[in-house]
Amino acid sequence: MKHRILSLLVDNTSGVLSRIAGLFARRGYNIDSITAGVTMDPRFTRITIVTSGDDLVLEQITRQVEKQEDVRHVKVLDLDDSVIREMILVKVKASEAERQDVIALANVFRANIVDVGENSLIIELTGGQNKLSAFLKLLSGHEILELARTGIAGLRRGADDVIWLD
Amino acid sequence: MKHRILSLLVDNTSGVLSRIAGLFARRGYNIDSITAGVTMDPRFTRITIVTSGDDLVLEQITRQVEKQEDVRHVKVLDLDDSVIREMILVKVKASEAERQDVIALANVFRANIVDVGENSLIIELTGGQNKLSAFLKLLSGHEILELARTGIAGLRRGADDVIWLD
Repeated sequence: MKHRILSLLVDNTSGVLSRIAGLFARRGYNIDSITAGVTMDPRFTRITIVTSGDDLVLEQITRQVEKQEDVRHVKVLDLDDSVIREMILVKVKASEAERQDVIALANVFRANIVDVGENSLIIELTGGQNKLSAFLKLLSGHEILELARTGIAGLRRGADDVIWLD
Repeated sequence: MKHRILSLLVDNTSGVLSRIAGLFARRGYNIDSITAGVTMDPRFTRITIVTSGDDLVLEQITRQVEKQEDVRHVKVLDLDDSVIREMILVKVKASEAERQDVIALANVFRANIVDVGENSLIIELTGGQNKLSAFLKLLSGHEILELARTGIAGLRRGADDVIWLD
């Protein structure tokens, strides 16, 4: 089982995200993660999908996605020449006594404290998979109440292969 | 047209993300954004969906999602008692001469420079919608080559309504 990261430039039409995801659902392709947002040109949305399968399936998926009417361009993002990042929000149980310890851990990772409650903190952290895993492991001495992950977004490094659509 | 943010706790089974998205596709419900990731308990995945429609449609969507076999729990996240954040990656054209100016703008927003190329920079920024919009507006004096957004992830503030599943 291999993973492949697809970066899709699609028409920003109503329902485009449902349609792309629906293609994966109908054909039984895995979506490990999907993130999406409008580009600077409001006519287009960029969707980043992490999918998995054997080589044959990954090729099929890529070709099927390319064939969709809404899809203008598909790039495969490689780890070694792309910036691949995810954001997580972690709610950690922390009494007043524990709070400083959790905040110190967050500071080591340059994480942001985005909410302080009576008995809990919410921490925001971005990074690659290794950094996020290391942080969650380090937090495991504390009680993690809730975790939300965005899934990954990515861009290829450098300015050589930027796509302009008319 | 109103927006609603749904935070779903679902079984972490193969294809669950495709199935949830497929439900939206089949019924013609809008997905404005969808983010997902495994929780600390590897049996469960948290999916955050922003959807839109009139009040009736939003109620229908919420009920339909709740009825899905994979779905263990659904919360509606309100802006006033939740942390709602998104991550963006922006590739900006920047010659050596422009680089310092772009970096200075990034610093004002506490954004991270995650790649420096010969003619471009990639900047990572997290925040609420207003902050991200303000940053992109400020950058508009420069040429934005590519933009990837994750869509939003969110958690309700405080520790009172944390759901534990057996």
